[in-house]
Formats: sequence, C-alpha cells, structure tokens
Amino acid sequence: MSKKKTNSKPNPMWGGRFSGGTAELMQAINASIDIDKALYKQDIRGSIAHARMLGQVGIISAKEAQTLIKGLQQIEGEITAGKMAFDPALEDIHMHIETRLKAIVGDVAGKLHTARSRNDQVATSFRLYVRDAIDEAVVLTQNLQRILVDVAEQHAATIMPGFTHFQPAQPVTFGHHLLAYVEMLGRDLHRFQTTRERINKMPLGAAALAGTSFPVDRQATAKELGFDQPMANSLDAVADRDFALDYLYAVSVQAMHLSRLAEELILWSTPAFGFVTLPESFTSGSSIMPQKRNPDAAELVRAKTGRITGNLVAMLQVLKALPLAYNKDMQEDKEPVFDSHAANILSLRVMAEMIAGLKANPTKMQAMAAAGYSTATDLADWLVQQLGMPFRQAHHVTGSIVKYAEDEGIKLMDVPLKQMQKIEKRITKEVYSVLSVEASVASRKSYGGTSAANVKKAIKEARKRYGL
Amino acid sequence: MSKKKTNSKPNPMWGGRFSGGTAELMQAINASIDIDKALYKQDIRGSIAHARMLGQVGIISAKEAQTLIKGLQQIEGEITAGKMAFDPALEDIHMHIETRLKAIVGDVAGKLHTARSRNDQVATSFRLYVRDAIDEAVVLTQNLQRILVDVAEQHAATIMPGFTHFQPAQPVTFGHHLLAYVEMLGRDLHRFQTTRERINKMPLGAAALAGTSFPVDRQATAKELGFDQPMANSLDAVADRDFALDYLYAVSVQAMHLSRLAEELILWSTPAFGFVTLPESFTSGSSIMPQKRNPDAAELVRAKTGRITGNLVAMLQVLKALPLAYNKDMQEDKEPVFDSHAANILSLRVMAEMIAGLKANPTKMQAMAAAGYSTATDLADWLVQQLGMPFRQAHHVTGSIVKYAEDEGIKLMDVPLKQMQKIEKRITKEVYSVLSVEASVASRKSYGGTSAANVKKAIKEARKRYGL
Amino acid sequence: MSKKKTNSKPNPMWGGRFSGGTAELMQAINASIDIDKALYKQDIRGSIAHARMLGQVGIISAKEAQTLIKGLQQIEGEITAGKMAFDPALEDIHMHIETRLKAIVGDVAGKLHTARSRNDQVATSFRLYVRDAIDEAVVLTQNLQRILVDVAEQHAATIMPGFTHFQPAQPVTFGHHLLAYVEMLGRDLHRFQTTRERINKMPLGAAALAGTSFPVDRQATAKELGFDQPMANSLDAVADRDFALDYLYAVSVQAMHLSRLAEELILWSTPAFGFVTLPESFTSGSSIMPQKRNPDAAELVRAKTGRITGNLVAMLQVLKALPLAYNKDMQEDKEPVFDSHAANILSLRVMAEMIAGLKANPTKMQAMAAAGYSTATDLADWLVQQLGMPFRQAHHVTGSIVKYAEDEGIKLMDVPLKQMQKIEKRITKEVYSVLSVEASVASRKSYGGTSAANVKKAIKEARKRYGL
Amino acid sequence: MSKKKTNSKPNPMWGGRFSGGTAELMQAINASIDIDKALYKQDIRGSIAHARMLGQVGIISAKEAQTLIKGLQQIEGEITAGKMAFDPALEDIHMHIETRLKAIVGDVAGKLHTARSRNDQVATSFRLYVRDAIDEAVVLTQNLQRILVDVAEQHAATIMPGFTHFQPAQPVTFGHHLLAYVEMLGRDLHRFQTTRERINKMPLGAAALAGTSFPVDRQATAKELGFDQPMANSLDAVADRDFALDYLYAVSVQAMHLSRLAEELILWSTPAFGFVTLPESFTSGSSIMPQKRNPDAAELVRAKTGRITGNLVAMLQVLKALPLAYNKDMQEDKEPVFDSHAANILSLRVMAEMIAGLKANPTKMQAMAAAGYSTATDLADWLVQQLGMPFRQAHHVTGSIVKYAEDEGIKLMDVPLKQMQKIEKRITKEVYSVLSVEASVASRKSYGGTSAANVKKAIKEARKRYGL
Repeated sequence: MSKKKTNSKPNPMWGGRFSGGTAELMQAINASIDIDKALYKQDIRGSIAHARMLGQVGIISAKEAQTLIKGLQQIEGEITAGKMAFDPALEDIHMHIETRLKAIVGDVAGKLHTARSRNDQVATSFRLYVRDAIDEAVVLTQNLQRILVDVAEQHAATIMPGFTHFQPAQPVTFGHHLLAYVEMLGRDLHRFQTTRERINKMPLGAAALAGTSFPVDRQATAKELGFDQPMANSLDAVADRDFALDYLYAVSVQAMHLSRLAEELILWSTPAFGFVTLPESFTSGSSIMPQKRNPDAAELVRAKTGRITGNLVAMLQVLKALPLAYNKDMQEDKEPVFDSHAANILSLRVMAEMIAGLKANPTKMQAMAAAGYSTATDLADWLVQQLGMPFRQAHHVTGSIVKYAEDEGIKLMDVPLKQMQKIEKRITKEVYSVLSVEASVASRKSYGGTSAANVKKAIKEARKRYGL
Repeated sequence: MSKKKTNSKPNPMWGGRFSGGTAELMQAINASIDIDKALYKQDIRGSIAHARMLGQVGIISAKEAQTLIKGLQQIEGEITAGKMAFDPALEDIHMHIETRLKAIVGDVAGKLHTARSRNDQVATSFRLYVRDAIDEAVVLTQNLQRILVDVAEQHAATIMPGFTHFQPAQPVTFGHHLLAYVEMLGRDLHRFQTTRERINKMPLGAAALAGTSFPVDRQATAKELGFDQPMANSLDAVADRDFALDYLYAVSVQAMHLSRLAEELILWSTPAFGFVTLPESFTSGSSIMPQKRNPDAAELVRAKTGRITGNLVAMLQVLKALPLAYNKDMQEDKEPVFDSHAANILSLRVMAEMIAGLKANPTKMQAMAAAGYSTATDLADWLVQQLGMPFRQAHHVTGSIVKYAEDEGIKLMDVPLKQMQKIEKRITKEVYSVLSVEASVASRKSYGGTSAANVKKAIKEARKRYGL
Repeated sequence: MSKKKTNSKPNPMWGGRFSGGTAELMQAINASIDIDKALYKQDIRGSIAHARMLGQVGIISAKEAQTLIKGLQQIEGEITAGKMAFDPALEDIHMHIETRLKAIVGDVAGKLHTARSRNDQVATSFRLYVRDAIDEAVVLTQNLQRILVDVAEQHAATIMPGFTHFQPAQPVTFGHHLLAYVEMLGRDLHRFQTTRERINKMPLGAAALAGTSFPVDRQATAKELGFDQPMANSLDAVADRDFALDYLYAVSVQAMHLSRLAEELILWSTPAFGFVTLPESFTSGSSIMPQKRNPDAAELVRAKTGRITGNLVAMLQVLKALPLAYNKDMQEDKEPVFDSHAANILSLRVMAEMIAGLKANPTKMQAMAAAGYSTATDLADWLVQQLGMPFRQAHHVTGSIVKYAEDEGIKLMDVPLKQMQKIEKRITKEVYSVLSVEASVASRKSYGGTSAANVKKAIKEARKRYGL
Repeated sequence: MSKKKTNSKPNPMWGGRFSGGTAELMQAINASIDIDKALYKQDIRGSIAHARMLGQVGIISAKEAQTLIKGLQQIEGEITAGKMAFDPALEDIHMHIETRLKAIVGDVAGKLHTARSRNDQVATSFRLYVRDAIDEAVVLTQNLQRILVDVAEQHAATIMPGFTHFQPAQPVTFGHHLLAYVEMLGRDLHRFQTTRERINKMPLGAAALAGTSFPVDRQATAKELGFDQPMANSLDAVADRDFALDYLYAVSVQAMHLSRLAEELILWSTPAFGFVTLPESFTSGSSIMPQKRNPDAAELVRAKTGRITGNLVAMLQVLKALPLAYNKDMQEDKEPVFDSHAANILSLRVMAEMIAGLKANPTKMQAMAAAGYSTATDLADWLVQQLGMPFRQAHHVTGSIVKYAEDEGIKLMDVPLKQMQKIEKRITKEVYSVLSVEASVASRKSYGGTSAANVKKAIKEARKRYGL
C-alpha cells in the first residue's frame, strides 16, 4: 500500500483553514503548471487589460493600475527570458504570476484580482491562446496552399493517372491533383475563420460564475483584448469549452486531409509507382540499400491524425454530462489543445517543405495514365456528342471496341477504323483525335475539370480566393 | 456501370457451413439500398436539375429533358407513396430510380446519365441531404431556445444555488441558468450556419473524377439546386466528405450540450435536490413506488451523446489516409449521418417538451442557495468597495467573520455588528444589506451577470439575436 | 413495471409544427423493440431457466414451472416463424414476450417475474447474446485462419518483396506474409476466449439491484444457462456493461487487422503491383474499362473499421461517470454491439472468400523482390559470418560494393569478384551463393523467419495451435 | 514562408550516402528521444539478453559478450543517475545507448547489433515496458481493492439508498455498494492478466522483418527476458502493436470504472446528499466559503477517462490500414501508452487514498434510504411468499396500500393493519416485520444480495479471490 506523504505547507490561498497539508499525490494530480505555463503571455495580456479597466472605471486608482501593468510587463519579460523558476507547489501559471507580482509591487498586487475570479481569468487566457493558435494555423495553411499552387503551376499539363478505387481510371494532370488539396485546405481556412468568429467573445467579468457587483466595463476590456464582445451569460462564460473543441475539431479535419496527401506521397514514392522522389532531408535511408528511401516524415504526418483525433475524443468525453458551471474536470482542456496544435503546425510545415522539394517523374506518371484503355470514356462521349447516341448505348459500343483491342492486345488508338466501323458504321477517323491521354485531358474543359487550361485558370482563382 | 458477375456455387473450402454462395455475401457487404433510400428526394432533385440543364445547353433536346423530368417526378411520388419495392440486387437508390425511369420513359432514360457519373451524382444527393438536415436542426434548435427563454422569463428572479465543483457556490437565478443553455445553443446555430455556408457547393459536373467534355452549365445546375457555386476541382468534388464530417461534429457538440442539460434535469429531479419535477409523460414510474419518477427521457438524451460521438469518430477513421479520388470506403458515409441526425432531432424535440413541461420548486432552490455562507463573497466585495480594502485582505477579514459564524452555528447575516467590528472596526450596519441571497443576486449587474434585471435584458437580447 | 401516462394533446408552445403529442415522442426515444427483438432467443432461454429454478426450489409449483416453460417455448417458435407482431407501444422484447405469455397461459404468467426484475433479466439476456456472438466470431476467425494457412501452404516458397515504410526491403515468401495474419487472428481468438471467460457470469438473481428475499438457487440457473457462476454483487450485476465493451473492443482490434489485410489486397491488386487478382465476384468492373477491377469488397472491409471503432467509443462515452446501479442510459448498449458484430462477421466471411479465391502472380512478386539490391543485408551478414567482421564494419563494406553496382547499373550478383576484392580482399566466390533472392529467403532459418522450410513448419504449428 | 534550416551533420548510421543534412524540421518530427528515453531500462535489459545469447551460441565470443554486458550495465547506471545528456540529433534512446556503448567499449560495440534490427529491438523494449506497466497496474488495482474491502467491512451493515435512474430505489448497505467496485476492479485484474498472457511473446530475432541467417537461439533470449516464447512470425513480430492497444484498452475500462466511483464521491459529498466527507487533502476550499469543499481530486480522476479514451482511439486510428511490416507511423505508439499509464496509476493511487480517508455519514444515508416507500417491494414479496399471491397481483395490492399511505402522508410501516386488511384481508401483523429498511436489507440473502451477513461473506470471498 502506498504511504501517504504530505506536503506540510498548506496552500496560501486557502487562508489556513485546512489543518492537514495537501498530499504529494494531490499535488501530482492537481498541479497544472507543467502544462499551463504555455499560457503566460495570454494570461499577462488578460491581466493587463483587466488592470487598465479597473483603473479607468475607478475601482482602483490610475496609479495602482499603472503599477500593476508595469509589474506584469516585467514578469512577461522574465518568463520569456527563462528567469521564472516553476514550482509545482504554486500549482498553475496564474499563481506563479500572482506570487511574483506581489514580490515586485507589494500589497497592491492583491487588487488585481478584484472583480474577477480564477474561473473567468483562466477561460479568458485559454481563449486568447486558442485564438493565437488559429491565427498561426491560418498562416501555415496558406503557406502550404501557396506551395501547392506553385508546384501545380509547374505541372499544369503534366499527365498522370486519376484513380478511383486506387485503380487508374482517367488521365488527369498532376497540377489538377495538387489543386484538390488546395481546396481541402481552403475549407480548413474557412473552418478556422468561422471558429475564430464564434469563439471571439470574452469570458472575463463573469467572475466565479454569477457576474460581479463591481462596476466593471467589460466592453472596454473586450476591446483591448481584441474580442468582439463580452460573453452574454456568466454561467456559460465559465462553463463553456466549445472554443477548445472547435479548434480540436478543425485540426482533426486538417490532419485527415494531410494524412491523405501523406498517403499519396508514400504511395507515389514507392518504386512500383515512382511518380515522385521526396527530398532527401525528409526521408531516411540505409547505407546498404541505397534504393530504399523511406518516407519517414510523410508516415509521421499520416500518423499524427491518430493523436489529433484522440485529443478531440478526449475533450468530448471530458465535457459529456458535466453540470454547470465550473468543474475541475475542465483543467484537462489545455493539454489536448497544445498537443494537437503543435502536431498540426509541425505537419503543415513539414508538408510544405516536402511538396516544395519533391521531384516529379512525368514519364512514369504518363506511362501509367496511358495504360489500360483509360480513354474509353472519351470514346463513349465522342459517340454521344458526334453521333447523338444515347449514353448507355454509347457505352455498349465502346465496350465492344475495347474488347476487340484487349483481345488483340493493342491500344485503343491502334484499333483500325474498319474494325470500329464493323461495330458502329458511323464512326469516322475523327474519333482518333480523342483517344490519346493528351486529348482526353484537354477535353475536360467543364468548370473544375482537369484540362491544362482549366488548371491555369484555377490557379489564378485560388491565389485570389485564398489570398496566396 | 458496374458489371456484376456472380458465382453461384458456394466455395468448397467452406465445407458447406454457409448456405449462400459468394454472390450473396458480396451483395450483403456491397448493397446500400437499405440505407441510401433515405436520399430519394435529394437524388431526384439533383437529377431533375441535371436533366433541365442538359436540355437547356442542348446536350439533349428540350423534349427529352421534359420527359426525363416528368418521369422523375412520377417516381418521387411513387416512392413517397410507398409504392417502390426495394431490391438488394439493385444495390442502391440511384440504380432503383434509373431502372424505374427506364420502365416509365424507355430508352431516353439512358440520356440522363450523360455528362455525369455515379461519383458526382452521389456526392450531390448526399450533400443536399446534409443541407436539409442542417435546416431541420436549425429550426429545432431555435425551438428549444425559444422554450428555454420562455421558461427563463418566468424564472428571471427565481433564486437557486449556482454550483462550482457541484458544490453550491453563489446564488444565481433559475432564469439565468437556463439562459446559459440558450447561449450554448446559439453557438450550435452558428456552427450549423457556417457549416452550411462551407458545404453549399455543388459536386455535380465533376463526373467520375476529371470533369467532362460535354458543354455543361454547372452554374445553372448549382443555381437551381440552391448551391452557391459549383466546386472548383473535380477530384476534390468526388473525394470530399468534409460536409458529412462537419455536420457530424456540429451534432456532437450539440449532443454534448444537451447531455449537460439532461444531467442537470436528472440531478435536479432526484429527491435530494427536488428543484424540478419533470413532466410525467417523459418519466417512468413504478406502481408500487409512487415517489419514484425515473427521468428516462433525460437519461436517454444524455446517452445519445455516445452514439453521436461514435459516428464522428467512425467517419474520421474511414477517411484517414484515403488516396484520391473516389474509394468505395466512402459508402460508409451515410449511415452515421442519418443516425446522428435522427438521434439529435429526437433529443432536441424531447428536451423542448421536457423543459416546457417541467415544474420548478423555487422553495427548495432558494433554501439551498441560502445555505452555507453563499454570500461571503458579497461581504468581501463590500469591504473592498466601501472600505477600499485590497481584495486579498478583504478575503482574510471575511474568512474570520465566517469562521465566527460557523463556530456559533449561525448565518452570516445573524453575526452581530459588534462581532464584525471586533474583526474590522470600520464595518457598519450597511453591510447587512448585501448578505441576503436576494441582495447578492440583485447586485450582480455587470453585463452577463445574474441579477433579475440583467436576465430580463438578456432575454430581450436573446430573442433578437437568435430570431426567437 | 412502468406506469406510462400519456399526454395526448400536443404542447401548445410548439405551435403545431409537430403532429404527434408528447406520448409519441416519448415512445420514439424510449422504445427499444426495433433493436432488442434480436434478443428473443436469449431472453426466452433465460426465462426458461428461471422458471425451472423457481419450480425446483418451490417458489412456484412444478406444474406452474412446466406451464411457463411450454408457453415460452411456444413463443420462441412463433417469433422464429415470424408470427409475432411487434408494437412500439409494448416498448421492448421482454414486454412482448410477457404479454404474449399471459395470452397463452393466463394469470400464471404473472409468476414468472417472481424474484427477478427487468434489470437483471435484461443484463442476462444481453450477456447470453454477447456470449453467442463471441462463439460465432471464434468459428469465423478460425475459418479465415484455415483459408490463410491453406493458401500460405501453396505459396510457402513463392518469393515476394517484404516491405518496410512501404518500400521493398528484403525478400520474403508470400506464404510467410499470409501467416502473419494467422498470428494476428490468433491473438483475436485469445482475446475472444479470455473475454468469454471474463463475462461468463450470471447477473440473474440480482433483481432490481439489491438481491432478493426469495430462496432462489442462482447456482442452478447459472448451470442451466452455461454460466460459470452467478455474479458476486447484485449492484455490479445490474450496473456492469464491461461484457459489451470487451466484445466491442475485441471486434475493433480484429477489424483493424482486417483493414491491414484489406489495404494490402487493394495495393497488391492495383496494376502497379499486380501481385494478386481478386475474385471477380468481390470486385466491380466497368463495361468500358475492362482492365479496371475495383476491389469494392476489400475497400468496404477496410472501411468497416470506422463504424466498429465508433461503436466502441460510443459505449465508453455512455458509461463514463454513470453512478450505480441501473440507469436508462444503458439501453444504448445493444445497438453498437449488434452493429459491430454484424459488420465484423460479414468482413470475416468476405475476407475468407476473397483470400480463397485470389490468384497470385508470383512472377511480378519475384521481380519486385529482386530489384533494388534487396540482398545487400545478406552480403553484410556473409561478411560477418564468414570473415568475422564486426557488423557495423560489414555494413560499410557492403555499402561500398552496392555503390559500385549502382554506379555501373548492375545487379549485386553481377559485380565481378575482383571488384569486390578491391574493396575487401578476403571476399571469395562463395559470396555469390547468398546474393540471390532464393538464397536470401532460404537462409532465414531462425525461428519465425521466412525460409520456405520454416513456413512449412509454421503452418503445421499453426494448424495445431489454433485447432484448424 | 518558413525558411529551411538544415542540420549539417548527416546521420552517422546512413553511411554518408545522403548529400544534404537532415533539416531541423525533420529532426523535430522524427526524433523521439524526449519520449522513448523512458524505455532505457527495458532497452538495456533486451540488449544484455541479446549479447549473452550471441556469446552463448558463438556468434560473438564469450569475452565480447561480457564486455558488451558490462558496458550496458554501466550505461544503465549512468542514465539512472541522470548522467546521460540527451541530444535530439541522436534521435532515439537506442542510438544514445549505442553511441555511448561505443565510447565505453570501442569497436566491439558494433557487434551488439548482429542478428537484430532496430525494428525487432524497439518492439521488444516497448513490449517489456508494457509488461512492466501491467505489473504496476495490477499491484495498484489490488491496493485499491484492499482499501475498498477494508472500508466495506466497516460498513457492512451501514444502510444507504440503492439507486436506479439516480432515484432512491431500495435500501442497500454502503459496504455492499463499495464491493460492487471491488468486482469491477476484479474484472480489470483479469483483463490485465490475460493481456499480459497474450503479449508475453518476444519479437527479438525477427530482425528487420524476415528473420535472420545467424544461428540465434531465440528460446534462450526469451527465457532470460521472461517471455513465454518467441513470436512465431517475423513479419508479425515487427508489425504488431496489439500489445499496446490491449493495454490502452484495459486502462480505458479501468478509467471508466474509476470515473463512476469518482462521480459517486462527487455526488455523495455535495451537501444535498452529505453521505461522505472527503479527506481534506484531496479537496480544495475557499477561505471565505468554509462549507465549500471542492472534490478536485475526484473531478480530475473522472476527467482522466477523457485522455485515456482518446489515447486508445489515437492508436486505433494510427494502425488502421497500415500495410506490413514496419511503418514509421508506429513511432506514435509510445506516447499514448506512457500517458495513459501515468494517468491511470495516479488515479488508482489518489482513489485509494480518498477512499481510505473518507468519513461516512450513516445518519444521512439511512434517512434517505428510509424515505419514499423504499420497502414497497418487500411488502409485495411478503404477499407472494406468505399468501402465495402471483407476483403481478401482489404488486397491485402493494400499490393500493402505498397509495393509501401516500394520501395520508404516512410511512408504510405506519399504515394500520386494518387499512391493509381492507385492501387484502389475509394480511397479518407479521407484515410489519419486513417494512423497515433494516428488515429489507437483512432479507436480501440471495447470493450476491445486500444483507450484512452476505456482505461479510462477500468480503471474505473477495479477499481470497483477488489475493488481498
């Protein structure tokens, strides 16, 4: 049986009421300083705004406000410079800052906590963090889009097989394929931006849960902190963690997108495909198997979707059925967000470098695109468009011609006109103009289609739409 | 079109354990008609728009278009009337409609599939379904908000304990508490609405994956179907299931919100609290234990968060690392969406009725709110506001007064002025005016705070903000 | 028994949007008959055992017991024959059977429920179901193992590339590769079997939650129902759903295993690899692209891991933080189990048929195995074993020889002895004997290694170990 | 756009083939030393066993083996003493140890890696870690069981309400309630133990993926490391992570169990119940609200189920559809296991202390148990047992008597005999003997029932069954 070890110093905030010290175990489960120290900038930003507002409305004097602000600024500098010694006995970052502030400015430090509570303070600091995280994710998402668009531009006309069921289906261009990811990332951007909109409301001023009797000016604080407005309900303000969830989700979808791209890089770079060579710096090799270039970075990006999905599930599980308002369970909110953010940012940066540095092999791409009667659809479409045949009948005719070619072991474009005419007499030699992969790709001119001309237009549009 | 060949003989390796042959097994895993028949309206809506566009741009004749449209309208009527016999051999709803259309209009039916493929067709039908689902969720969310606001209005001044750590903390009003949920639902609304914005783009016209060589007018089809625009990349159009994920997520957060409300109803209606009595119609009883009113419906709403979260995880798992463009894996997209939608809609409706029908017990609420020195914060705030004491020192003084009261077994407001003055001589009799729960609640006038006056203003605001 | 009171008038606050009244809504959320009717056999089995025990200990007469048993047997026959009309107003399968029993045997039906409650009855029926499900999963797991072993036997010496990072690494045999899955399935078996052990305890006799004052003989009932023993704590007996969770988990791991095999079938059957051709009956094709054989069934097996993982998460979410003993939330326990079981059983059967029917292409496998200096490790090992070189130094020498071969564009076995000796003079012509893929594979004779001889031994062992 | 910063020193293991250095970014995503350094003991244990075996079979000399073993032992001492400087450029713990070994013993260090590869080495080290983790979890699970049993013994006869639907249902004893958790933990033990059985097989000797041509003795290494046997298939040996999953799952179920107990502690300690007072050291208070004792530790235990479930999902997501054999994705396997293990161990220890230190309030428990006609079932059972009434009819009679009592506002045991006889004339005064909560509890003598006598027997049984 474990022996209880107690920490003889009672928590100074509890005013000595508790006779026993808190157990070491309690400290181990309760302290969050290892995690929440990442919030120090946001916490200080929030405290400065609060102090300024307290001074403005006269709850404290202007001079006191100034003293508090200067003290807080000094502390930010100290932490950034690595001069703060973190101590689990001080539990969290807020206590560390408060304790240090008292050491710097003396008893007036005790006035900073007027008209607020740890509950609304923490919710505010963390919300500022998530907002900053979104802003960083947006920049890196656009960066990856920019690189994808640049590489797509080089390969607007590079033909590769388009796959369904991971079987080559119809020819597309490599540029077109890369732009599909630009669109996915575009939805990620929209998700980040609307999440930011939704969460950009300030909890501060909700106090413990009921609001405060001090004549605070929440609008002023909100404005200074860049929030669109204060939250409308004090209970909700301290009980809400949707902002964390929404970000965890947005990152989960982005990680899923990146896992698809990572999967393709892995597949494309295995010798059986050989479509691309990944930059050496993002692969690992073997001194005795030089041909083996392991796509480690791509595999790790693919795998990150695991922890990122797990973090989302963790938070949904934590919040399930929690009664209002604040519960200590919510302390488990930060680690998943920090972890998902870090993993995603890293994936975005790694992916950007890998795409920027990959070397495409158009010869291999085109060879696979041309195999396997991949332009049969073009033949059928020609029959519909030129001969007015109903679609389903055109398919039947095409099937017969393809069967002939297959039996003879020849390509579609090598089937003699006479043979074609035996199957459908109205076919003319013009049909050959649609049977090459080049022609097939060039013909897909419908909006969103894969023709090189379209790809170039789409690149222009994407740069404009996403501000690249 | 898939060319299905079946093997009628059971595999000899199986030793006759299974009566059916491989064809039956393939049909069992492959057919989706049991699920996707729910899409018939959306599929027909999409096909009608497609047919009309084909006619308008001259890919088919105006008369053919009209014939197709009429046939499709007839089929919709038949299915709605329960006259369609569903057959697993016809795999999915699209094949059912196509087959029936041929029976009605003959060979011209074969022209409907011109310039589209099953891949873009299915993506379009399902997207329309999700859009409809969002619209229904929005209406029911507002309905629940409306009821919460109405009940909150009746209880704008009803005092109850506000909880942190599920321990009574400070008095709030029941109306204020209910409005916290109106805010949560308000975020749900925003999430639904921005999801709708993001997904309201049309895949149709992407064809199999590469676009089409037919001179389609995707703008026209998009307009008829109420989409903001066609999707910009054909590969993305058939590979994307973000729209399903986004809805699954929005529902997951809402289910989590409802689980918190359900939890509170369950706790509030257990005799130890007795804050509310749930409507009999949503509880189960026992013929021999009449006092037992089991909150079955609330428990089930709470539990629905399980399957709804599970459906989100399922979809994230399915999409992980799928290469572009279409993969059959995506056929697993519909069931989780249908299931989460149905569960959530039901929860929203049940919750609305339960809230509308609950009977509050203000006496019990107020009694618990008044217990346990719940206005100690008010005393401390008075010391700060009236005597200019720093916050931390005010807390110390309050602690001493509370300790006296506790030792004497009396309420805070029954501590004699003299005793208070022994601890802090500047205290005057005015202090008693802040020590009642009524005074405490009334004083929380900061924006978002719990005073009855605030609650009334908040109700007005909420009605306007959310269009209730 | 629940005393249901319905409110026939729709709530006026709803403004007539919904046609039904609250009763309909409650029925919609509360009734489980659509789901739990799948339990009828297990429920009747449990009731028969209970009735027999009641008769044996004299709580009811022997004749009454006989009457109840006969009535129950008749009902089982009726339901199996499809003669039971299910009615949502009767909520669940238990109520249906009880109601029908009364119709058949009259008032004595009322004695069946003596000394039990719905809580322990449902827990028992569902536990019997899960036990049956495990038994079915075990049979089908062994069936798939048997087929894998049979196919592995045919390909004990068929050389294919072994992959790491999805890059060809060292040659292995196809038989060896398939046996890896036999091992995974072997762990699945162990997981099923130990789960069965753990769950094979009987809740019946716990009554509502406290046990019963009737002199029941739980040992006797347990024995009749094949349980190892009655559960030791009545509260736990009605509150426990670990048995459902454990099965959901075991299926999740198996689905993950099958997803890996499905992924490999998909990759192996894409033309770039062409290692296998899947049986036509489990693929879909295209009338105009005959080369395209879409691995639909494999893709669907791969995707099933989504819903199966989702169901596990759902149940963990439902059970989180539920106080003892029974809560209505637990009614959400059956659907995920039924769904995961059905999906997994189907995947196991489909996978068995696909493996049994696949056609391997040893030529393509061997060609890829031989490419890319895949026997470089064998050269290094030869240097260590024959020349006593330290491993790291042997790697260095090998690297130099491979570099020479690569620069010359020749295979490792085509590097002249002289060139090798320039790099390391002690190399003799015996070295060539280890440089072919055949030699490489043959040399891996360590236990568990890939040599054909090993594979044959492993097959014998597997058949014995798993009872195939 | 991020600028690429490169690390100029190429990885020494890749033999200088790569011209560019690895990027800093690559290092950030690739290095695992921050995580896997936790494996150093297990890695060294595995290496020592490997070295000894190499010496025994003569692959290296006995002296070389001895040198390697001594070097490795020295390194273990150094790391334990905190003397190892960890460097991200050395990527992982294995490289650190290898590099340090070379520094200590010179070139012979290069022989340690003979006949093994990083793939089987890592799998072995991690498996040893998981086995150790299981052993620690088992000890702490039994510790918590022991404390629960001890407290249950003190309260074998302490009456409290048993709940269904969180409404008081029938009286039980507090001891009985606590024993329900002993049973849950008993299943956890079984899950840990059967997991240990399943995973206790050795990957070492699988080498990269194909086995080795060196004449290794895997049985000997397995024996030294305490494994039951070497794994039977080399591909499976390096591709399998079931052992991590199984542990993550076992911990998930245990966390769910603890979340239920935590929930009950939170509910029981809120003033509305007041059943227990938690030890001060595991709660937080407020200097001004002395009555408020926040159950922080219990809330945190409840919340841990979030991250633990998330970690399980993460791993299932990572492994989905990974082709054999080793993929870098698997590097994401350790962090979830380390995190879940640490969280669970902490929860088990905290819970043990909280249960050991809680103070029960039997008066409040019994008062609630006696309220609300909680012995009505006992009356019904009396009618069945003494008067031979069918169960359903007995319920009807009981309902009438309860209704009378309710109308009169009296307890069941205060209903006059005459009134009872008006409803059922055969009732005698003996009936009163079953109407008290004490009598009710005492009557539940069926195996597993709540009578104090049963609880005492159950405690004896539990101590024996679980080795407490």
